[in-house]
Amino acid sequence: MSLIEETVRSIRPPDEEVSRDTQDRLDRLTKPVGSLGLVEALARQVAGITGNPRPVFHRKVVFCFAADHGVTAEGVSAYPREVTAQMVLNFLSGGAAINVLARLAGARVVVADLGVASPLPSHPDLISAPLGRGTVNITRGPAMSLETARASLETGIRIATDEIEAGADLIATGEMGIGNTTAASAIASVFTGIDPLEVTGYGTGIDEGGRVRKAEAVRRAIKLNRPDPENALDVLAKVGGFEIGGLAGVMLAGASRRVPVIVDGFISGAAALIACGLAPQVREHLIAAHRSAERGHAAILNHMSLAPLLSLGLRLGEGTGAVLAMHLVDAACRILAEMATFESAGVSGKSVPAPEKS
Amino acid sequence: MSLIEETVRSIRPPDEEVSRDTQDRLDRLTKPVGSLGLVEALARQVAGITGNPRPVFHRKVVFCFAADHGVTAEGVSAYPREVTAQMVLNFLSGGAAINVLARLAGARVVVADLGVASPLPSHPDLISAPLGRGTVNITRGPAMSLETARASLETGIRIATDEIEAGADLIATGEMGIGNTTAASAIASVFTGIDPLEVTGYGTGIDEGGRVRKAEAVRRAIKLNRPDPENALDVLAKVGGFEIGGLAGVMLAGASRRVPVIVDGFISGAAALIACGLAPQVREHLIAAHRSAERGHAAILNHMSLAPLLSLGLRLGEGTGAVLAMHLVDAACRILAEMATFESAGVSGKSVPAPEKS
Repeated sequence: MSLIEETVRSIRPPDEEVSRDTQDRLDRLTKPVGSLGLVEALARQVAGITGNPRPVFHRKVVFCFAADHGVTAEGVSAYPREVTAQMVLNFLSGGAAINVLARLAGARVVVADLGVASPLPSHPDLISAPLGRGTVNITRGPAMSLETARASLETGIRIATDEIEAGADLIATGEMGIGNTTAASAIASVFTGIDPLEVTGYGTGIDEGGRVRKAEAVRRAIKLNRPDPENALDVLAKVGGFEIGGLAGVMLAGASRRVPVIVDGFISGAAALIACGLAPQVREHLIAAHRSAERGHAAILNHMSLAPLLSLGLRLGEGTGAVLAMHLVDAACRILAEMATFESAGVSGKSVPAPEKS
Repeated sequence: MSLIEETVRSIRPPDEEVSRDTQDRLDRLTKPVGSLGLVEALARQVAGITGNPRPVFHRKVVFCFAADHGVTAEGVSAYPREVTAQMVLNFLSGGAAINVLARLAGARVVVADLGVASPLPSHPDLISAPLGRGTVNITRGPAMSLETARASLETGIRIATDEIEAGADLIATGEMGIGNTTAASAIASVFTGIDPLEVTGYGTGIDEGGRVRKAEAVRRAIKLNRPDPENALDVLAKVGGFEIGGLAGVMLAGASRRVPVIVDGFISGAAALIACGLAPQVREHLIAAHRSAERGHAAILNHMSLAPLLSLGLRLGEGTGAVLAMHLVDAACRILAEMATFESAGVSGKSVPAPEKS
């Protein structure tokens, strides 16, 4: 049995009993029932995933996977493709947004090269696992072979599993890859059935004319390659990206090990579509960090029925929204661990006569 | 000159030069321009308010003011009024949601009794500043006299000023008061001109029939008292609450001392309407933490053109949303302090030929 099949088969649903008990406890805490909204839903979810009614996360990791995209030859991005490698160096020196926000969240950034086109120096903090020097231009042919698509998933599974075995208990996804919003738009269009123009956005900052041309590139890529929405591996191979496959692998690994996975924005959302296409039971293990400003992200979230925690108009990627959302996971855990119940605090419940004051 | 007038007169607009320089810096950081969305707007705002291009907040405080409301006699709440005092005791013993989330945020909770009906024991951490034993039932007459309304504002100004002089550099508002969503709905209706039924919600958890009766109580209170929307003090006196006046005072004090004020949900929003009614220039010093699930809150935010940071379906009050949002303020400050620029990191800018790789 392959690593992918083995991982998929080992994914269990969240523990329903723990989820139910957690909801009961939430309802006894000194607040109106349900008044902490999504924070309560999050508490219930992470308790169910981990099977721990008082979850605490000690070792947070964000996976920031980088790769290049041949489709940049179509002029789909506002930045030159060299920026992918330059930003990897920025990650390694700690100056990128993901470094700053991960430090604030108490999370470690795991940077991996899944297929950056420009040469990268070896670096102790860089996992070098390239599957090529960027994907093929998807308007000319499939992004990668089926074999390479499998390899990208396996690479993600291996990197995540190594971290989980070293103690990672809350993981998040992020990426860097000039051109990868184009691949993500193609994936979104294939799975949701929505027209490319509706799920193609401005990426790093092209103008409206650029967006229309980018959507046309997505349309041509889908027409040429005919990815099969019933076959997620086929979609990944034909219009995906190395880092997208890697992140889908991270999600499979997290779900199989009962480690909650915080999914960042648009590109990570496309990876989630791949992961859920391979194994629908992954969905309940995913936490949607935020709704990105990138057009098409809402469609991705809707397709998977994931409710985003934040809506801050972010469109940076790297995992920035995911590490910002870690604070809400901490908040949910603290509520479960530290709040008094109506009984313990001597507070009158709803519609119940007040007790004698203590 | 009274304390209120003195405070209002000393409010200056945020420093435009610092705001502009901060925007320039944000645009040079290694990310697409504007890609951190509301986090960038927040960075610009807190830099402008404080006049510090690299703001850092060391001493965070959330003011949790409690008071009772005579309108509870109309059956507008799901909980008995004794809960106000019981929850104050819960705040003092550290078991309420605000305690838990403030600890996570590194914020201190300042609890003050502005007029709780049930007797409260003296406690070293409780500021006792009662203006009565709850307001008058607003369906029978004005909530309080104009003198008392002024006193509630002054109490808030004094409590906040004491904390600011002791070093508080980021402040937030919160409250507890069974019945106070009814007062807040009345304030919202008066200032926005929207029908009471549209700005009256379920509060702590009444049903739809209860909501309709509550809205009718709001309608009767407005019809009887005829609060003048051009006179915020009049509105506060006729349909407000002691804690609402106190929080409006906190906002005036923060704005006058260039300390950013994070405004919690629906009740705090009503206090912001009072504060901005007294001094429109307060608005730029306010950070809207979140959009509450309580019907009417969106109308309050719209009326002041405040964009909420979070939208988590919260409807708990106490300042819980405000302290959750402190993390985003920290994130904004860290971005300004720690991110590399395109130049410093050797990353190619938008639409510029790539430099030689270093």
